[in-house]
Amino acid sequence: MAKGKSKKSKKKKQPGELCDRIAEALVVAEGFDLSQVDPASTPQLDGKEKDAVKLQEKSSDEVADLQERMYANKGTGPAILLVVQGMDTSGKGGIMRHVVGQVDPQGIHLTSFKAPTKEELSHPFLWRIRNALPASGMIGVFDRSHYEDVLIARVRNLVPPTTWKRRYSQINAFEQATTDRGIHIIKVMLHISPDEQARRLTERVSRPDKYWKYNPGDVDERALWPAYQEAYQVALTKCSTDVAPWYVVPADNKWYARFAVHHLLLRELRTLQLDWPPADFDPKVEKKRIAASLAEG
Amino acid sequence: MAKGKSKKSKKKKQPGELCDRIAEALVVAEGFDLSQVDPASTPQLDGKEKDAVKLQEKSSDEVADLQERMYANKGTGPAILLVVQGMDTSGKGGIMRHVVGQVDPQGIHLTSFKAPTKEELSHPFLWRIRNALPASGMIGVFDRSHYEDVLIARVRNLVPPTTWKRRYSQINAFEQATTDRGIHIIKVMLHISPDEQARRLTERVSRPDKYWKYNPGDVDERALWPAYQEAYQVALTKCSTDVAPWYVVPADNKWYARFAVHHLLLRELRTLQLDWPPADFDPKVEKKRIAASLAEG
Repeated sequence: MAKGKSKKSKKKKQPGELCDRIAEALVVAEGFDLSQVDPASTPQLDGKEKDAVKLQEKSSDEVADLQERMYANKGTGPAILLVVQGMDTSGKGGIMRHVVGQVDPQGIHLTSFKAPTKEELSHPFLWRIRNALPASGMIGVFDRSHYEDVLIARVRNLVPPTTWKRRYSQINAFEQATTDRGIHIIKVMLHISPDEQARRLTERVSRPDKYWKYNPGDVDERALWPAYQEAYQVALTKCSTDVAPWYVVPADNKWYARFAVHHLLLRELRTLQLDWPPADFDPKVEKKRIAASLAEG
Repeated sequence: MAKGKSKKSKKKKQPGELCDRIAEALVVAEGFDLSQVDPASTPQLDGKEKDAVKLQEKSSDEVADLQERMYANKGTGPAILLVVQGMDTSGKGGIMRHVVGQVDPQGIHLTSFKAPTKEELSHPFLWRIRNALPASGMIGVFDRSHYEDVLIARVRNLVPPTTWKRRYSQINAFEQATTDRGIHIIKVMLHISPDEQARRLTERVSRPDKYWKYNPGDVDERALWPAYQEAYQVALTKCSTDVAPWYVVPADNKWYARFAVHHLLLRELRTLQLDWPPADFDPKVEKKRIAASLAEG
C-alpha cells in the first residue's frame, strides 16, 4: 500500500498542486470581502475555456476511480457532502449536470431544497437537512441548503432577527457534528455579477426552450441584490470553518465554475486516501467454489 | 409545433427505425421461451462493440434533449420508470453507470432494492415500490424491483406459494394503475449465461479492486440457476403486458446490453413527443422588467 501511494503521489504531482492552489485561492479566510471578488475572474487557471475543459477531462477518470473506492467502503468509510449555493441563474444546474453528472449515479444522493413545506416548517430548520445527509460511501449534493435559512430568510424577514441570528452558530455546530460522523463538507457559492444575471434572465425569456426555467419572481429577488450580497458576506465569514470551509467560485464563466468545483471535489476525494476494502473471504477458496459450481452446471 | 415535428421525424428516420427494431426483437411476446434466447447474441446490431458505442454516442445528445423536455414539463407531464432485473453479475451496475449516467442527475430518481427491511416486510410487498415511483418529469430507475417478490421469494420459499402465486396479477394491476397515472414503464432483464457469470465471479475474486463486489452467497444462489430461470420465464410471460412490456436483453456482451437499454430508453422518450412548455408570462413584458432592473443596479 505504501509503495502504491508513493508511486501515485509522484505521478499525480502536477494536478495535485492545481487542486490545492484552486482551494487556496477560493477559500473564505479571515478578512474575506465578497465585494472584492471578481465574478469574471478565473483564479489559478492557466488559459481559457478549452484549457479548463481539457484539465477537467484529464482528471475525470481519477474522480471516477476515487469515487468508486469511497463507494466500495460504504458502511464503514466516509462520505462527502457538496453544498451548492448561488443567486438565481448562477449555474447550480450546470454543476449538477456537468460535474456531479460525471460520477456514477449510484454513488450520488442529490437533494434540491425548495421553499420549505408545511411539514418541514413544523420542525427545526435543520430537520430536513439532516434527513438528506449522505450515507457512508456516498456523495451527497445539496442544490441550495440550510444556508437559505440565513439568506432568503434574513433578506425577506421570513423569521424574526433573533431567530436567524442564532442560526449561524447552530449551523456551525451541526456541520461540526456532521464532519465528526465522517461526512466531509465542501461548500461552494457560485458568484455571478448582476449584469451576467440580467444577460441570463434575458436569454430565458427569449428562447422557448428556456421559458420553463424563468420565474417572474426572479426579477423581484434581483431588486434585493445588495441585501443578498450582504447576507452572503455574513454567512460566508461566520460559517467558513476549518472543518467545513466555504469556497467562493467566480461563475460569470460557467466553464470556470465547473472546472473549479470539479477540482475541489477531486481534492476532497484525494484527501480521503482510500484503498479498496480487503476481502472478507478467502479468494483461493472462492475461486475453487466458483469453478466447481461451473462444472455442476 | 406540427411543422417542427414533421421536420424532426424526417431527419431522425434511420435511428427511429433502429429503436423500434430493437424493441421488437427483444420484447417478450406470446410463445416466448427464455431458454431459446442466446445471451451472447446482439440482435439488430449491425456490427461489433465499436459500432454499438458509436451508435449510442450518436443519440446521446437526443436523449439529453428529450429528457430535459420531460423534466421541463414536470408537475403536469409524464414520467418514465426503467426497471432493471438480472442474475448476479449481469451488469445492472454498468447500466446505471453508462446508460442512466448519461442523463442529467437532477432528472433521475434511482432506487436500489435490497432484501426488505423489517418495516418494509410489515407492509404489502408493493408498498416500498409505490414509495419509490418517479414524480412527473423524472426518470425513475429500479435496480431490482417488485419482481424479486416473484423471483427470490419463489425460489427461496420466502413466502408460501399461495402468496407469490397471486402476486403476478397484483403486479399487473399495479403497473396498469401506474401507467394510468402517466408513468411509462420499461422493464429489462439482463440475460447472461452461467458460464459468463462464472467468468465474472472469478474476476471479482481475482482482483483486489473487485473484492468488494463479491459475496460468497452468490455461489449458493448460482446453484439455483435453473429454478431462477424458471421463475424468470413465468414472471416474464405473465407480466409482459401492452402497457408494461418486458424486454429480455442478451447481456454476455456488456456493450450490447448498454446499447440496447439506451435505445429502449430513447424510444420511450421519443414516444412522449413532448414540446417545451409554453411561457406562463409575457416575454416582452419580462424583457423590459429585466432591462429596467439592470438600469437600477
